[in-house]
Amino acid sequence: MIRTPDTARELRRAYLFAEMSEPHLQTLIKNMHEVRLDAGAALFRHSQPAERFFFLREGLIKLFRLSPEGDEKIIEIMRPGETFAEAVMFMGAKGRYPVNAEAVSESRVYAFDQKPFLSLLSESSDASLGLLASMSRRLHMLVNQIESLTLQNATYRLVAYLLEEIPRDVTTSPEVQLTTPKGVIASRLAIQPETLSRILAKLREANLIEVQGNHITIRDVQALRNLVHLPPQE
Amino acid sequence: MIRTPDTARELRRAYLFAEMSEPHLQTLIKNMHEVRLDAGAALFRHSQPAERFFFLREGLIKLFRLSPEGDEKIIEIMRPGETFAEAVMFMGAKGRYPVNAEAVSESRVYAFDQKPFLSLLSESSDASLGLLASMSRRLHMLVNQIESLTLQNATYRLVAYLLEEIPRDVTTSPEVQLTTPKGVIASRLAIQPETLSRILAKLREANLIEVQGNHITIRDVQALRNLVHLPPQE
Repeated sequence: MIRTPDTARELRRAYLFAEMSEPHLQTLIKNMHEVRLDAGAALFRHSQPAERFFFLREGLIKLFRLSPEGDEKIIEIMRPGETFAEAVMFMGAKGRYPVNAEAVSESRVYAFDQKPFLSLLSESSDASLGLLASMSRRLHMLVNQIESLTLQNATYRLVAYLLEEIPRDVTTSPEVQLTTPKGVIASRLAIQPETLSRILAKLREANLIEVQGNHITIRDVQALRNLVHLPPQE
Repeated sequence: MIRTPDTARELRRAYLFAEMSEPHLQTLIKNMHEVRLDAGAALFRHSQPAERFFFLREGLIKLFRLSPEGDEKIIEIMRPGETFAEAVMFMGAKGRYPVNAEAVSESRVYAFDQKPFLSLLSESSDASLGLLASMSRRLHMLVNQIESLTLQNATYRLVAYLLEEIPRDVTTSPEVQLTTPKGVIASRLAIQPETLSRILAKLREANLIEVQGNHITIRDVQALRNLVHLPPQE
């Protein structure tokens, strides 16, 4: 296998290697090997001893379980730049793969033996604390992202609902007063009152709506349409 | 402080303690202490040495930074059952809090000194590997959740768009053929073609739409409305 100077940079896209010291990473690179898989080829099978974990370079790998009837339940789809089967590695020698892994399309992965990785962690408390730090930062980041997606989701549902509540004959007017009370909207859409308030406040700040007591006035129908149709701005 | 037998169970809600051995957890419980905060009270300030991390029992804590102009930028809102400032702990003695923490409402937190936690991790490789395992499982779970929320989000936007494309005079008919080509919809909504295909396939499987070549026929307008208005089923 040819290892370009970019191998380390490529690996650092995964949280597992992102903040690892360069000498540690080079040790792992020396011990890894590349596996090429045709579409449909199996990488590992459920309940095999988990001796290796993987970094996906190219392609798409599905992790799945099979029901007793033989139905496939997809657990996760791995994309380039992601590692998988590292959780079971941390469980040590007793670990077995809890899923099957199969290439969806032609794929290339790097395979890492458990042992060098685990001995690196046990020999260097800096390495394991560093990994814990980067993982816990990432956890917080993902939880934040989930919160914001959940809010976006509720916003789309609310705006889609508001747009439909607009009487059909007033679509030329930019402003329209809705007759459905706020509380009814919340319970119809099953949005938490706290979340509804946050969303309404945001829409009000953007001058899209006005809220008087229990009623909502849409101030700019077109802008509200744009909000659902345009992708979210980060 | 009174520690009920439920303290361990309460702490296990946080990923940090979820899979810790009972003796280890009891050691930490012996060393922790409770802090009560009135609404608006500060728990720690930006750039103080990070000697403790926290578990929120009750209330709401905001983590924020202040701009040079004194504007507050909220980084994260912590909810009961969550830990915070543990990432900076893993960085060891050199760590300083990168944010301010303040109670939004009356709050109760457990405070843990860094030292007992870190020496527990360095003395027991089982403990640190166990923590790495549970964190990496949680990371995969959260990434999955983000993917499904992102897909849901795109679905809402697409359905809201389709509903608006329905000519205003055919709302009594359950079925309507749209004249906008699929490709135009994808580029208008800035949804990846791959994602659009996945969503259309799902809607087709549910018998809500039909796709013939480039055109979409809505087979059940009301069901499509319900889809945007009802909260997602897990």
